[in-house]
Amino acid sequence: MSNSYGTLFKISTFGESHGPAIGVIIDGCPAGLLIDESYIQSELDRRKPGQSKITTQRKEDDTFKILSGVFEGKSTGTPIAIVIENQDQRSKDYSHIAETFRPSHADYTYESKYGVRDYRGGGRSSARETAARVAAGAIAKLLLKQHGIDINAYVSEVGDIKTPHYTELDLRKTEDNIVRCPDAAIAEKMIALIDQVRHDRDTIGGIVTCVVKNTPVGLGEPVFDKLHAELGKAMLSINAVKGFEYGSGFEGTRLRGSQHNDAFYSEAGKIKTKTNFSGGIQGGISNGEDIYFNVAFKPVATIMQDQPSIDKHGNETTVSGKGRHDPCVVPRAVPIVEAMAALVLVDFLLRAKTSRL
Amino acid sequence: MSNSYGTLFKISTFGESHGPAIGVIIDGCPAGLLIDESYIQSELDRRKPGQSKITTQRKEDDTFKILSGVFEGKSTGTPIAIVIENQDQRSKDYSHIAETFRPSHADYTYESKYGVRDYRGGGRSSARETAARVAAGAIAKLLLKQHGIDINAYVSEVGDIKTPHYTELDLRKTEDNIVRCPDAAIAEKMIALIDQVRHDRDTIGGIVTCVVKNTPVGLGEPVFDKLHAELGKAMLSINAVKGFEYGSGFEGTRLRGSQHNDAFYSEAGKIKTKTNFSGGIQGGISNGEDIYFNVAFKPVATIMQDQPSIDKHGNETTVSGKGRHDPCVVPRAVPIVEAMAALVLVDFLLRAKTSRL
Amino acid sequence: MSNSYGTLFKISTFGESHGPAIGVIIDGCPAGLLIDESYIQSELDRRKPGQSKITTQRKEDDTFKILSGVFEGKSTGTPIAIVIENQDQRSKDYSHIAETFRPSHADYTYESKYGVRDYRGGGRSSARETAARVAAGAIAKLLLKQHGIDINAYVSEVGDIKTPHYTELDLRKTEDNIVRCPDAAIAEKMIALIDQVRHDRDTIGGIVTCVVKNTPVGLGEPVFDKLHAELGKAMLSINAVKGFEYGSGFEGTRLRGSQHNDAFYSEAGKIKTKTNFSGGIQGGISNGEDIYFNVAFKPVATIMQDQPSIDKHGNETTVSGKGRHDPCVVPRAVPIVEAMAALVLVDFLLRAKTSRL
Amino acid sequence: MSNSYGTLFKISTFGESHGPAIGVIIDGCPAGLLIDESYIQSELDRRKPGQSKITTQRKEDDTFKILSGVFEGKSTGTPIAIVIENQDQRSKDYSHIAETFRPSHADYTYESKYGVRDYRGGGRSSARETAARVAAGAIAKLLLKQHGIDINAYVSEVGDIKTPHYTELDLRKTEDNIVRCPDAAIAEKMIALIDQVRHDRDTIGGIVTCVVKNTPVGLGEPVFDKLHAELGKAMLSINAVKGFEYGSGFEGTRLRGSQHNDAFYSEAGKIKTKTNFSGGIQGGISNGEDIYFNVAFKPVATIMQDQPSIDKHGNETTVSGKGRHDPCVVPRAVPIVEAMAALVLVDFLLRAKTSRL
Repeated sequence: MSNSYGTLFKISTFGESHGPAIGVIIDGCPAGLLIDESYIQSELDRRKPGQSKITTQRKEDDTFKILSGVFEGKSTGTPIAIVIENQDQRSKDYSHIAETFRPSHADYTYESKYGVRDYRGGGRSSARETAARVAAGAIAKLLLKQHGIDINAYVSEVGDIKTPHYTELDLRKTEDNIVRCPDAAIAEKMIALIDQVRHDRDTIGGIVTCVVKNTPVGLGEPVFDKLHAELGKAMLSINAVKGFEYGSGFEGTRLRGSQHNDAFYSEAGKIKTKTNFSGGIQGGISNGEDIYFNVAFKPVATIMQDQPSIDKHGNETTVSGKGRHDPCVVPRAVPIVEAMAALVLVDFLLRAKTSRL
Repeated sequence: MSNSYGTLFKISTFGESHGPAIGVIIDGCPAGLLIDESYIQSELDRRKPGQSKITTQRKEDDTFKILSGVFEGKSTGTPIAIVIENQDQRSKDYSHIAETFRPSHADYTYESKYGVRDYRGGGRSSARETAARVAAGAIAKLLLKQHGIDINAYVSEVGDIKTPHYTELDLRKTEDNIVRCPDAAIAEKMIALIDQVRHDRDTIGGIVTCVVKNTPVGLGEPVFDKLHAELGKAMLSINAVKGFEYGSGFEGTRLRGSQHNDAFYSEAGKIKTKTNFSGGIQGGISNGEDIYFNVAFKPVATIMQDQPSIDKHGNETTVSGKGRHDPCVVPRAVPIVEAMAALVLVDFLLRAKTSRL
Repeated sequence: MSNSYGTLFKISTFGESHGPAIGVIIDGCPAGLLIDESYIQSELDRRKPGQSKITTQRKEDDTFKILSGVFEGKSTGTPIAIVIENQDQRSKDYSHIAETFRPSHADYTYESKYGVRDYRGGGRSSARETAARVAAGAIAKLLLKQHGIDINAYVSEVGDIKTPHYTELDLRKTEDNIVRCPDAAIAEKMIALIDQVRHDRDTIGGIVTCVVKNTPVGLGEPVFDKLHAELGKAMLSINAVKGFEYGSGFEGTRLRGSQHNDAFYSEAGKIKTKTNFSGGIQGGISNGEDIYFNVAFKPVATIMQDQPSIDKHGNETTVSGKGRHDPCVVPRAVPIVEAMAALVLVDFLLRAKTSRL
Repeated sequence: MSNSYGTLFKISTFGESHGPAIGVIIDGCPAGLLIDESYIQSELDRRKPGQSKITTQRKEDDTFKILSGVFEGKSTGTPIAIVIENQDQRSKDYSHIAETFRPSHADYTYESKYGVRDYRGGGRSSARETAARVAAGAIAKLLLKQHGIDINAYVSEVGDIKTPHYTELDLRKTEDNIVRCPDAAIAEKMIALIDQVRHDRDTIGGIVTCVVKNTPVGLGEPVFDKLHAELGKAMLSINAVKGFEYGSGFEGTRLRGSQHNDAFYSEAGKIKTKTNFSGGIQGGISNGEDIYFNVAFKPVATIMQDQPSIDKHGNETTVSGKGRHDPCVVPRAVPIVEAMAALVLVDFLLRAKTSRL
């Protein structure tokens, strides 16, 4: 009951990291959308493991297959089912955790909640599930592009290395380097830090910032389903996320109202604001300014070190880091953040069609 | 379609700040719960305006009436409808904004989305709606208490004045002062700052921290409806909230995995963790440790100063602060944060009943 | 969790027959709809008790009050809350059933399911709940009227007295008599039968037929939420309903495909069918022809006779008919059937807005 | 947005009849259920085409594959994805309908609603979709069996040949003949009639009756989601269904209340009713008696005859029966009715877990 997201553009994902396949059903995609399969693949490629020296060296092609909902290149209004087979399953890497709870992983909580778990590679709790989100998000992006809406995420912090505010960056440069930071000099420092951490057999956290441009005024439902509340939920549902803030965020709490208020003005018949502490959202509804938000990712829990832990019988044991893992998750998280943002926005775009006569 | 929250314990709120009444329907409260009306009132009293010198001086008794769902003092399993009449409606205070958009309010976005709006006091976008949440949350708390679950929110920051970590505070002292900060000395500074801001006819933001104790292991649905993702959405749906973080939050991104991982140990047959950077949640599911999170509130948008703005025709105009407003929202936000946390937890408590045979 | 209906135009009802009030929240009504309060009242008047000699003599004015969602006569897009106070509550009439289960009522099943019940007048299981549906349905009808959609229900059978097929009736005459049958001569026979049954201190069942004209092509979602499946659920959710059929219905099962198929033809550029065994719905989607269906109502369970039963402790007892009840429910069921049909159609009308780009 | 069914035990189906595959995701199956794959296959075999001389001669093995949610033979609480590849796709059989609307099919309404359709074999509107329901229903049945709940559907009418009331039949004999009628003599007549109809290159309708035994008291949600209302929706969502009635059904409308009321009595500490016109459901909640209902299926629309029709441009044309189709749908509908009944019951079984403290 927890594997669906969205109200009108609704996705349901399935699959464990070491089962036969993972996948997603998209229910509610309007008919008539051109489904560009190469675009979906290119988005999956941005997320896939093994893409650079600072990501896990595990190999998955993440080739997808569409089973339904597309006919002669167009969506038909029926559910779009996408399946991605699991290929590089070294299940043996995980036999050591069948009985043991890895620190800061979901092993213990799954075991407690369900009484049974597919322990291979974390099973359902593996971030592999996010590949299904990226595939669905690619279709959402295709639909948003028709409305001119443009979503740009990038790595703004790794450890304590950070970029300036997004308005001072050229977001077209995000894909120019393997850490996905649009400032080349800072990117280099980030890469060096991640490399260092990897050598230390350790991991580190970071922050992904996302900027959405050209959102029409009026998206978001103003009480419980505020635009930023759904964005927050969507981001917090991504593995390893610990925090979300939009517009002025946590820093904004230190300002006075007289500093923080965004003054309206009119330009060429269009209503705009002089500042944008609101982050493009007022009262839970988009106001046409840039939407921007930060997503905090903790350091990856799997480290290549021995750690004390306990087994399912409560006995003390040691967990040794095995397998192939990311020293820092944020470079691969960028397309996931974009995908979830796209899913939120496309859903509100459809919901907005019935807000007035 | 945006006025309901929850899956099994579901609330639907209604009402505008200056209409006849606001209220809430709770659908899904199990039958047989003792409904302590004086407790509901005491929770509403913590939120109501006019309760101290640092809140708005507007007066609302916020007396509620239960219309259904309770028989001979107990819930019957049918919808519990609660109505709170609006009393102190100085609608004239708002005639000046019928045609004008207040900066950083929802006037412009509502007008754009719906083409019509009840401008009196912000109408539906007023934080008055949260009184309905507090009433429903009080019933959720009554149910949680039967399971020993204990929710404690408090003011941890006003502007740049902040408390130490919650583990160094005595949370039983939160209600001892009007700013709802459990550290008496820091509370005094906060009150002085708010007082100063009010004299400046300005406003200021702050942070509410919430700590949940005695949560059973296993609450939360592990993919999209992660426990912290729902908490995040619930908090971000409260008026004026700009950010949410749990456990190590944004700070945690700067740590290494070897520092951040919470080591398991076993004590008296119970599995526990030595540190709690996870904030009591692993893989989206509660692990039995304290759940704690921070909620960032922006400075209130209504200030007692003239501000430049535009009217609905795009003409330049001036908005003058009128009415009676809060210089800082966090003291009154404490019970709202608790109410939303209770609604999230009670929903997951019910959902957990079907997770295994 | 069972007190809401609809996906985009969503209603949530509350209230027991002998509590302070019943009511409904409508969430999802588009902004800008003129809310004609006198029309809502006229619909409630068609359902209210005491309206003629063949209905219960219980008196309820069923005067309603709108608490929210309407400003200056128009819907604002926010929830419309409607409350109807209960007036004529002779709770004492029901003290005899506090401990006893009335045959073919919901007393036993409520008691078993919830462990507690508001026994006064059937509490939540009373058909009084349908007044809330009629109020909400009136608003749905106002919206449908803007699209030319016209809903006409009438009594087609009482006991074994029945009307010819709807195409042979003048549906504008339904309100000309107290039984709501558009054929005057048959209506007289129905009234005489109901009168006879009432004198016998007994009750009798009947059938309501509903015809929807001018539905646009394309309403209905074609797999689980077929237009006729939702109509069926909506009708079966009305108290005392035992069956639903649309188009050729149960009789159609005896036909051959060659007789039953509706041949298409084109007229003035419009696609139509020569016959309409399909009942205006093909593959779960409206095809523009008249939608028509039958709803079967059982004889009212409360009869003015002594009946053997048991009490909650399993002891034998006698239930005596008390209170004021309908000898036949169909005349008052006509506006309820129309209201539920309107709620189904308005929901699909909104849902259809996102079926294609 | 229409391809999911259920609240807690939720299925989402996908797939077109001539695409690569159809399938279903089950979200909400409790962890720990033994998944007997041979049982799922046996249920699919009861529905598959080509199983006897009175069904379509089209061949589909309907072999399924589980992609997720099952580990070491048990459900894990995560989504169970099941895929059935399409094998015998003679798409050329359908090229003639790419531009033509078959009478009483969904071609015209799909085309109008979506502007695009996968015309091959009816695409999404094909009854092939029900194979996915049968697979999911088999898992629901496995769970219900653990609670002793037993679901038995059978063919009670073909054309005007009918069985006596279910209480006079031995329901264990349903699978003894190819028409799935538990009365051998009547079954022979039904088979002869279907054979005759097939020779006439025509089709005929029929009725499936379903009896559920050993349902616990208390299933069903008593207002909109009444047990019989959900059963009705579930049945009406099956292709070709035109009507639903439970208990006394349409016939019951002709009875008097004094005849129709089911008298309670107590036997060995258990509360039972002497008659069962209520069909095991009172006030929308199961009362422990047998639940029974009838489902009316129209004659199959595809007949092996030339029929006049129009094409998508409104021109007159002729549709010739091609392909391999069922002369009567009810023998293969029996497992579909059982599957949908199981899905309804298992959902209410889970929902009932939170109805009281």
